[in-house]
Amino acid sequence: MEVSVSRKAHFNAAHRLHINAWSDEENKRYFGSCNNANFHGHNYELIVQVTGEVDPVSGYLIDMKELKDVIKEEVEDRFDHKNLNLDTEEFKDLNPTAEHIAVVIWRLLRKRINQQLKLKITLYETERNFVEYSGN
Amino acid sequence: MEVSVSRKAHFNAAHRLHINAWSDEENKRYFGSCNNANFHGHNYELIVQVTGEVDPVSGYLIDMKELKDVIKEEVEDRFDHKNLNLDTEEFKDLNPTAEHIAVVIWRLLRKRINQQLKLKITLYETERNFVEYSGN
Amino acid sequence: MEVSVSRKAHFNAAHRLHINAWSDEENKRYFGSCNNANFHGHNYELIVQVTGEVDPVSGYLIDMKELKDVIKEEVEDRFDHKNLNLDTEEFKDLNPTAEHIAVVIWRLLRKRINQQLKLKITLYETERNFVEYSGN
Amino acid sequence: MEVSVSRKAHFNAAHRLHINAWSDEENKRYFGSCNNANFHGHNYELIVQVTGEVDPVSGYLIDMKELKDVIKEEVEDRFDHKNLNLDTEEFKDLNPTAEHIAVVIWRLLRKRINQQLKLKITLYETERNFVEYSGN
Amino acid sequence: MEVSVSRKAHFNAAHRLHINAWSDEENKRYFGSCNNANFHGHNYELIVQVTGEVDPVSGYLIDMKELKDVIKEEVEDRFDHKNLNLDTEEFKDLNPTAEHIAVVIWRLLRKRINQQLKLKITLYETERNFVEYSGN
Amino acid sequence: MEVSVSRKAHFNAAHRLHINAWSDEENKRYFGSCNNANFHGHNYELIVQVTGEVDPVSGYLIDMKELKDVIKEEVEDRFDHKNLNLDTEEFKDLNPTAEHIAVVIWRLLRKRINQQLKLKITLYETERNFVEYSGN
Repeated sequence: MEVSVSRKAHFNAAHRLHINAWSDEENKRYFGSCNNANFHGHNYELIVQVTGEVDPVSGYLIDMKELKDVIKEEVEDRFDHKNLNLDTEEFKDLNPTAEHIAVVIWRLLRKRINQQLKLKITLYETERNFVEYSGN
Repeated sequence: MEVSVSRKAHFNAAHRLHINAWSDEENKRYFGSCNNANFHGHNYELIVQVTGEVDPVSGYLIDMKELKDVIKEEVEDRFDHKNLNLDTEEFKDLNPTAEHIAVVIWRLLRKRINQQLKLKITLYETERNFVEYSGN
Repeated sequence: MEVSVSRKAHFNAAHRLHINAWSDEENKRYFGSCNNANFHGHNYELIVQVTGEVDPVSGYLIDMKELKDVIKEEVEDRFDHKNLNLDTEEFKDLNPTAEHIAVVIWRLLRKRINQQLKLKITLYETERNFVEYSGN
Repeated sequence: MEVSVSRKAHFNAAHRLHINAWSDEENKRYFGSCNNANFHGHNYELIVQVTGEVDPVSGYLIDMKELKDVIKEEVEDRFDHKNLNLDTEEFKDLNPTAEHIAVVIWRLLRKRINQQLKLKITLYETERNFVEYSGN
Repeated sequence: MEVSVSRKAHFNAAHRLHINAWSDEENKRYFGSCNNANFHGHNYELIVQVTGEVDPVSGYLIDMKELKDVIKEEVEDRFDHKNLNLDTEEFKDLNPTAEHIAVVIWRLLRKRINQQLKLKITLYETERNFVEYSGN
Repeated sequence: MEVSVSRKAHFNAAHRLHINAWSDEENKRYFGSCNNANFHGHNYELIVQVTGEVDPVSGYLIDMKELKDVIKEEVEDRFDHKNLNLDTEEFKDLNPTAEHIAVVIWRLLRKRINQQLKLKITLYETERNFVEYSGN
């Protein structure tokens, strides 16, 4: 029985979209108000989905409390109430688009979750915009 | 890195479920209150999902502002505050079930979005009923 | 102990905003796309709030099942899957704005709910627009 | 045209996580507060997704009213306002984790839905924890 | 400047509606399936609203982290993953209707929050049923 | 007939809680992670409620399109994709707590809305924290 189990979490962060190799004008034209030099921010909503075989004895795919703790350590403690561009190693040289943030979170969690389980990340930047990444 | 990016939109429309080739009695029996001759209506919630390779420079799969504009031109301007049966070309001879509306929206958007990107439509007719279509 | 108890319900209806005493041009200018001659529609979300003294024995203000049934009889059976302008007595000569619909629903329910209880109606026309009426 | 149609439903139930073959201490250590001997409970939110070919005449994949009735008979009448461990056949000897509940619901509905249609269950135990099962 | 500040929290609990002074038959007739002898349960969603004058220096009405901690100590630690009828002092002899639970929570929090601030409780028993209590 | 009409809007902004007259240590102790020197951010959800007499002819309390435009001009154009501390006049010398932001928005809108109508602001800083202000 292959089942998926999902856990929601969230973090609040500031960011700006900006590519160092581009001129200010190019950045402004491409990213518009998202390029604001003084940053803006979001309440990021995160869904972590883990897929695999249910343990026939316990009826658990994964202990949700452990999953919750791993998300806290790898994602919330790292990004919550932070400026993604200035306060994090991950986005020092990587443009913090929703696409990139989802990929970064996937990689951080991939190292911590049993390799026999599949992993998928859904990240809401706003209620109306969201991205998904499964490591492919 | 294959990522999916989704954008939500909505439109409010009137419709009735009715098949011209059937008798009134058959329509009434099959579609029940959804067949009401004077129409009823919904707040349709739409999720447009686009899937493909993230641009390694910009960190964008697709410019969300462009996607938002395409949805406005092809879907909202066409269907919002309209009677789907009477005011639109698409449903003159096609029964406007949620299934058909999702397929029609998929086809309208498919022409406007880069053919290298996959496209999926999710359409909520009510909070409790929704349909999905990926072009298969 | 004065407590408020609320129950949510919903109905899907078609309508158009139109005042018979005005010219078509005036209606069009004032109500815009909401004036569309062929109607449009909404999923109306309704919250019925009843306020009064909790019964010290049962711990109930009002039996929720009875409240649910009254809402079904007076609101859902009357307006669900209907055209408010064409299919209902209430809006034959009354412009079905969200404000008027809330007032009409309040009056329909007021007759059916114990007069010692206060009554308030909240009506969502869309997720972003809603009205409230308390009978004052 | 392969389309998915989904219907939401819900039921409110009590349960405890407990494996008869384990000692009380093992159960307590493994399931924590979810093992509380006197039970706790949830508002379970259910999404039933059915996938297949749309009927080219009616524009329906499945009659939503029939799907709603099947969910009521197989899931709501069986589990709503019940104690899953004590009041149901299904969980007399099966630990009622969200994973197991999703699998049980899938099996109950699978028997009632046209075998040419694919079936997927999503079950929210809380707003933050949910599971998915497709019968694989 | 009188401002209201609200904080959401939740707890999952089992309960049954039952009045010891009534016969089993009376309980069954009055409370229906909510009287199930083996209990059922809910995800209770709680909104705690505090109203008063904003501190002109800090711009805070109340420190949200302190409010969050008080709710955890008085409500979540007491009721989460519990059977309200069997595991709590508060509902040993008090029927745990949503109305009564809201009043009990109001009294527990009232003792812990500055008396110059007004306090209001909103408690969702399900997404469709909720109660409010302000201490009047 | 006194009716309330509400309109939802939103804006995404960066901010930090900081009082210039306090030492860095005092700010850190009082505001915790909200004091982060490089800012963090939120998706602010705004509900603007207007209360007054419904026009007996049109059935409108206020034209929702006008209200939407006023909110865009006064709130969204001013605060969306901005750093509240650095990019706005309003919070140059005012700590941008949710309480203060709600009061500032109330004052900006109060000037633009008919003085015979009452005005109330609800501002969600996160899904779990929100404030209300009515000008008292």
